[in-house]
Formats: sequence, C-alpha cells, structure tokens
Amino acid sequence: MKYIKPADIEKRSFEIIKSEMRTNPPADEAPVLMRVIHTTADFDYEENLVFSGGAVQAALEAFDRGAVVVTDTNMALSGINKKALEWLHIEAVCYMSNIEVAAEAQSRGVTRAAVSMEKAARITGKPLIFAVGNAPTALMRLADLIEERTVSPALVIGVPVGFVNVTESKERIMETAENYIVARGRKGGSNVAAAIVNALMYEKIDPGRNK
Amino acid sequence: MKYIKPADIEKRSFEIIKSEMRTNPPADEAPVLMRVIHTTADFDYEENLVFSGGAVQAALEAFDRGAVVVTDTNMALSGINKKALEWLHIEAVCYMSNIEVAAEAQSRGVTRAAVSMEKAARITGKPLIFAVGNAPTALMRLADLIEERTVSPALVIGVPVGFVNVTESKERIMETAENYIVARGRKGGSNVAAAIVNALMYEKIDPGRNK
Repeated sequence: MKYIKPADIEKRSFEIIKSEMRTNPPADEAPVLMRVIHTTADFDYEENLVFSGGAVQAALEAFDRGAVVVTDTNMALSGINKKALEWLHIEAVCYMSNIEVAAEAQSRGVTRAAVSMEKAARITGKPLIFAVGNAPTALMRLADLIEERTVSPALVIGVPVGFVNVTESKERIMETAENYIVARGRKGGSNVAAAIVNALMYEKIDPGRNK
Repeated sequence: MKYIKPADIEKRSFEIIKSEMRTNPPADEAPVLMRVIHTTADFDYEENLVFSGGAVQAALEAFDRGAVVVTDTNMALSGINKKALEWLHIEAVCYMSNIEVAAEAQSRGVTRAAVSMEKAARITGKPLIFAVGNAPTALMRLADLIEERTVSPALVIGVPVGFVNVTESKERIMETAENYIVARGRKGGSNVAAAIVNALMYEKIDPGRNK
C-alpha cells in the first residue's frame, strides 16, 4: 500500500461518499452530512440527519461571536479538532468529570449529564453550542432549560445513540430548540457529535473544503 | 420521561439488542458484539465483526498478565473505562500527541499513527493489546511489525473506519495477527475500538454482565 497523504485520503473519501449518496442535500447541510458519513461509513444518516432551517448559519454566526461548545462526554470533546478551535478563538468544554457536578448528581439522584447541561447553561455572554452524543438525559434536561427560558442555545446538536429514551429525547429537542441538528432514531454517538462540530468549524475556516 | 438508573437502562438496552439480533454468536463473542451494537445502534456488526478463534480468551489472559492497551487515537483512549482499567491494574496508552512521534513522522514522511505503533512495539515485558479505530496506516504498520517478528501482540482490535485503504488494512491484519477482532469492510471507529476494549474488561471483571 503506497503512502498517501492524509489530506489526499480525505479528498478521495469525500469523492467516494458523494458518488454513493442517494440524496441531494442542501448546499449548507451537505458538508455536515458528508463528514458524518465519513466518520461512520453509514449512509443511513442521509435519512436520519435532520436540520432546522438555518442551523448551519446559526453555528457559523455563533463562532464569530466567541461560541462555547458544550459536550456531554469527554470522548466527544476529545474528538473535536483543537487546532480548529484555536483558529476560531473559541473553546469546547465538558463537565462530566467535574467533581461538583458528580456530587450534585448523586445527591439529587439525576445523571451527571443532566447536571452538566445545567452548569453549562449558566455560562453568560457567549453563544452556546450544545453537542450531545451520548446521554438522552442531557438532551431532555436541555429541553427543560429551553422551555423555562433559562438558556437559549445558538445550536443544539442532538445525536445520542441508544435503545432506551434516545429517540424520544431527540423528538423533544426538535420541538423546543430553535436551531438543531439531530440524528433521528437510535443512531448517533460521541464520534458523530464531534464530527458535526468539526464539519461546522471547517466550513467557517475553509468553506467548500468538503464539497 | 421517568428517571431510570443508568444500570437499568443498560440492562434494558441489552435485552432489546438480544431480541433484535438475527444471528446467534458464540457465547464468548456475544458480549463484545452486543456492546458494539450498543455503542453504534448498528446491527450490521452482526455480519462485519469477526473473531479469530480464542481472541476473547487471549484478551482475558493478557489482562491477568498486566496488559497494556495501545490505541491509535486519543478519542478511543478517552472512551476506555478508567475505573475498569484501575480494577484490572492495567493501563491504556496513546502516543498520537507525543511530540517525538510527531517529529519522527514528519521527518520520515509517514503517519503519526504508524510511528505510534512502532513506539508501542518497543514496550517490553507486558502483553500488548492494540486497539486501532481510526488509521489504516496503523494497522498496516502493525502487520509489518508482526511479520518482521518485532512484536507479537496478545490481541489486535482492527476497526478503523473509512473509504480508502481501510478494508485492505483489515484483511491484511487478519492474515498476520494470531489473535484479532476485526470489523470487516468500511465500518468501525474510535468508539467501536473503545467499546470492544470495555466489553473485554467487563467480561473479566463481571462475567455474564451482558448476556
């Protein structure tokens, strides 16, 4: 196997993905969808991945205003491109390992993921992009906080994976969040959450990179 | 949505997975396959995930002898259960952010993933479990090192995802590694690599947890 540069492999991968896609998504959504397929090799996302109108634009504007990306797992945080964050002068955080969050979750009998969302909702002065790839309870708590007008996210990426409460949590966030990117049904994951954040950042830094 | 304890959600999830599976995998492989499906909600792994004979047993024995788990991404490392590692008195490492690895990769014109595998191959006195969820070049370099008898891994988990060189790298590692767990074809990922490591550790700690 000849050594091929990573950038060339990515280019060729996107050509293959494009050639095998059965749908023709809107121009702003295509790079996000294609990067999710690139991360999963799963073309089901052509059907599953749904965008509220203007979701991509909302993310790009939030980056301009110093957005904070909030994840519900350290794994998703780990998958977010650090050089791209630096380039955009924005930060990504995850409170799942925060000891105060863990203590509060235990004392209240709720998940750490739910308490993490509450903690993130207290960040002020910056647009918030929530990227939930694991915990339906994070998405449900976020929906509560939006309904109570405690938080008004610039964008909610709702892509937890799983078999219990997952589908319901995604349907609910689509009813409450103004701007969302959601993988309907069971599929998703921390890798998918990170891929969507990365795709949005790459569109800001180098529009048309994945066309 | 009623609050359900995470352990109960996991139990219920595995019941659903079991009820929907179309195949009847061997008893030792089933917990690994089911955890991969739990992580991806993708039943294609029933067909894709292949085990060399005794792969699971090889991992369990390696844990007894103080195995080191080597990943090809920080994301996979991040997804490996730290409490389970601690319980088993074993460690997991990833050299992708190592500055010497980066410098060497650049000067030789190869990927950091390949150089990471070489660095890990120099670990002595402990059985090595390689968990490759991203880079086909890591898997190809590992196959070279096995052929040259530079390293003799206790187990190779070969589950990179992607469209270029990925399928080939998996076929090659199945020809060279004595013990392997491989997701044939394009699918896989860092999340899948971590899920397989976790499933193996849980089988050691609490056999039958996921039945």
